[in-house]
Amino acid sequence: VSDVSFDELVRDGETRRVAEWLRASTILEIVDELARLDPEDTAVAFRLLPRDRALDVFEALDPGDQQQVLDGLRADRVRQIIEALDPDDRARLFDEMPAKVVTRLLGQLSADERTLTTVLLGYPEDSAGRLMSPEFVSLRATSTAGEAIEKIRREGLDAETVYALPVLDDHRHLIGITGLRALVLAPTSARVGELMTTDGIHQVTTDTDQEVAARLVREVGLIALPVVDSEGRLVGVITVDDALRVLEDEETEDFALAGGASPLRGNYLAVSAFGLARVRALWLLLLIVAAALTVNVLQVFESTLDEVVTLALFIPLITGTGGNSGAQASTAVIRAMAVGEVRLSDLPRIVWREARVGMMLGLMLGFAAALPVVILYDADLGTIIMIALLIVCTWATTVGSALPLLARRAGVDPAVVSAPLITTLVDASALIIYFVVAKVVLGL
Amino acid sequence: VSDVSFDELVRDGETRRVAEWLRASTILEIVDELARLDPEDTAVAFRLLPRDRALDVFEALDPGDQQQVLDGLRADRVRQIIEALDPDDRARLFDEMPAKVVTRLLGQLSADERTLTTVLLGYPEDSAGRLMSPEFVSLRATSTAGEAIEKIRREGLDAETVYALPVLDDHRHLIGITGLRALVLAPTSARVGELMTTDGIHQVTTDTDQEVAARLVREVGLIALPVVDSEGRLVGVITVDDALRVLEDEETEDFALAGGASPLRGNYLAVSAFGLARVRALWLLLLIVAAALTVNVLQVFESTLDEVVTLALFIPLITGTGGNSGAQASTAVIRAMAVGEVRLSDLPRIVWREARVGMMLGLMLGFAAALPVVILYDADLGTIIMIALLIVCTWATTVGSALPLLARRAGVDPAVVSAPLITTLVDASALIIYFVVAKVVLGL
Repeated sequence: VSDVSFDELVRDGETRRVAEWLRASTILEIVDELARLDPEDTAVAFRLLPRDRALDVFEALDPGDQQQVLDGLRADRVRQIIEALDPDDRARLFDEMPAKVVTRLLGQLSADERTLTTVLLGYPEDSAGRLMSPEFVSLRATSTAGEAIEKIRREGLDAETVYALPVLDDHRHLIGITGLRALVLAPTSARVGELMTTDGIHQVTTDTDQEVAARLVREVGLIALPVVDSEGRLVGVITVDDALRVLEDEETEDFALAGGASPLRGNYLAVSAFGLARVRALWLLLLIVAAALTVNVLQVFESTLDEVVTLALFIPLITGTGGNSGAQASTAVIRAMAVGEVRLSDLPRIVWREARVGMMLGLMLGFAAALPVVILYDADLGTIIMIALLIVCTWATTVGSALPLLARRAGVDPAVVSAPLITTLVDASALIIYFVVAKVVLGL
Repeated sequence: VSDVSFDELVRDGETRRVAEWLRASTILEIVDELARLDPEDTAVAFRLLPRDRALDVFEALDPGDQQQVLDGLRADRVRQIIEALDPDDRARLFDEMPAKVVTRLLGQLSADERTLTTVLLGYPEDSAGRLMSPEFVSLRATSTAGEAIEKIRREGLDAETVYALPVLDDHRHLIGITGLRALVLAPTSARVGELMTTDGIHQVTTDTDQEVAARLVREVGLIALPVVDSEGRLVGVITVDDALRVLEDEETEDFALAGGASPLRGNYLAVSAFGLARVRALWLLLLIVAAALTVNVLQVFESTLDEVVTLALFIPLITGTGGNSGAQASTAVIRAMAVGEVRLSDLPRIVWREARVGMMLGLMLGFAAALPVVILYDADLGTIIMIALLIVCTWATTVGSALPLLARRAGVDPAVVSAPLITTLVDASALIIYFVVAKVVLGL
């Protein structure tokens, strides 16, 4: 296959050619070559094996060499090598690791090391694979309750992880869930298979979004959520406290964005005034650039404004009301998306509903604002304000509800299309609507 | 004490005179009189006993009469009688119920009935007392692990409630916490007292705010949080799923308010367009009334505006930027209060920090906005905009951070002082600042 030796290819970082060689060789050839490398190079080469071959190779290795692979996979340099690769290459060359290797590898690590190492397992950022813990006790359906309790005693893990016990078949597939309580309450000779729940077991795959997984834990009230790989083999569990941490972080971020700022890292009081200014400055700059649009719009209508200066009095009222109704719509849609009540495919339905909501609100506000204007100023101005508010509110709720959904379609966090952004974007269009209506009504 | 008989007083709803009679009579007299009443009247009379007497009376009653008291306390009519009372009377006449009666009473009820009945126990709305469940297994420190497991088997409750087991002394005081795992892993002859945690046990009282209790469950990662009465006797536990439900409801409400709307009851898509409009209308009306202020302010400066119409071009930019920086500050403070990072006493420190943040942001935005204005219009206008933005931003972050804290001091949910409200309130003052600066700079 190649004129240079395998170990040279590995040492030179010729990732693609190493992968080619691994595909073309027999299991025994691979095992022989891997055994000759140092732990870190072994790990890199092992990681380049396609998933099905990787398990065969791993099982064909001597126990000492298996440990060498695991040691290598934990090494910082290996992680750096893999992280340094072009993301496309990484996605194409690095297949999912076999479940057996994943659990053995992660089981040896501290929580901190694990966070670093999951990167190299190829699980996408913010995925269940990154969040899961490999600390669980798995049972067999054929064991007795007594044997199961004995196993729990031996492995003696955290409470959280023994209160939800996955039951696996010979292929590490999840076939049921039981808990310490069920085992304790049953006669010691009862089979685990009789004590487990098999219906409607909740599980997620390693590439499920963390937030989706965490929300499932909260909604169903689970103590631990099993995580399986793409072939349904158990590789880890997400515990309730990890899930809650994710949800709290996510909500803190959504709140920060709702206020038009990036989320703070740390306690509000612990962050310096300069730190507070920093997370807000970028957004404010962005918003003031968007606000520059309003200056341009008003410049276009400067002659109208010059003629009827009274029109200027109602500018903040019109833009403010439009901004507020847009903010209401976007906040409602963002929250509904965050808690999973709304999907992308609901877009047309939502926009149509929000447009009607905006129309109702615009009618109400139009009357409420126009009445005093008619009394204190004149009927024409009242008419302008009524019509403008009706159109502005309808437009604002439509835009406010559609943009968060479109943001998600574009792969952006919908919370980014926050109330302040909607408010600022709506301002310019509200002014155009206001002045066009004014010109029509006044016959200018 | 009285010329009419006790049972007549009770039947006539003479609450105060019944309470007087109960204070003046002996335990035996009371027991005799209670036994003559029907269950519902018995319950009302029993409820009027002072706390210490109530326990003595309850224990002096025959088991049949005890059950009659419990039956009566569950009755709808009793709840209605107690709810119909003047709140002051209710607070003065209805003492806390003895822990023993509370747990016996609540233990007989379904979850729904319990929600209704906790009203009559006198626990304040949104308190831990209303949220707690009486379903827990309590242990004695002197029992063995084997006896404890036997008790759990007998009472066979939900998993949640056996994974956190309170250990009580003879007076129902909480002295430790253990869990099923510790009991199972220990030798059967080990004493519960050796298997329990005694240090830093988290507990709350019945009148603790629900949200505070729920947040404690989440932060510490508890499966169940013990709830004790004012004398430290265990009356219930708050389970993790109930705590999470409270937090999710609270966060949904905070999000709705952040968008300037009342929270929706139910799924976003399940609520009709009219329903959506309803939760938003009130807030929009309130905000448009506040926005009317801006019209008045502009009217005051109408002559200035007439003279220099160009000033009108920057109105939305000034008010928008002020609103955005105020919204950032209020959202940050509201969130920090919600997660318990900030207390009322931090007010001066927070306001001082936010004022400096506002100044930094105002300086930056002032330069960013003034530069193009100087180039495209003239230097005076640029100066006005720079100074106005500096003052407006400082003022907006100060007001935005102070108002949520002042709202809490006034007993109002800080989330009510939402971004839209701050934005609208800041608009009018921003205009005053802008025009005053303009008049000074232009020498008008």
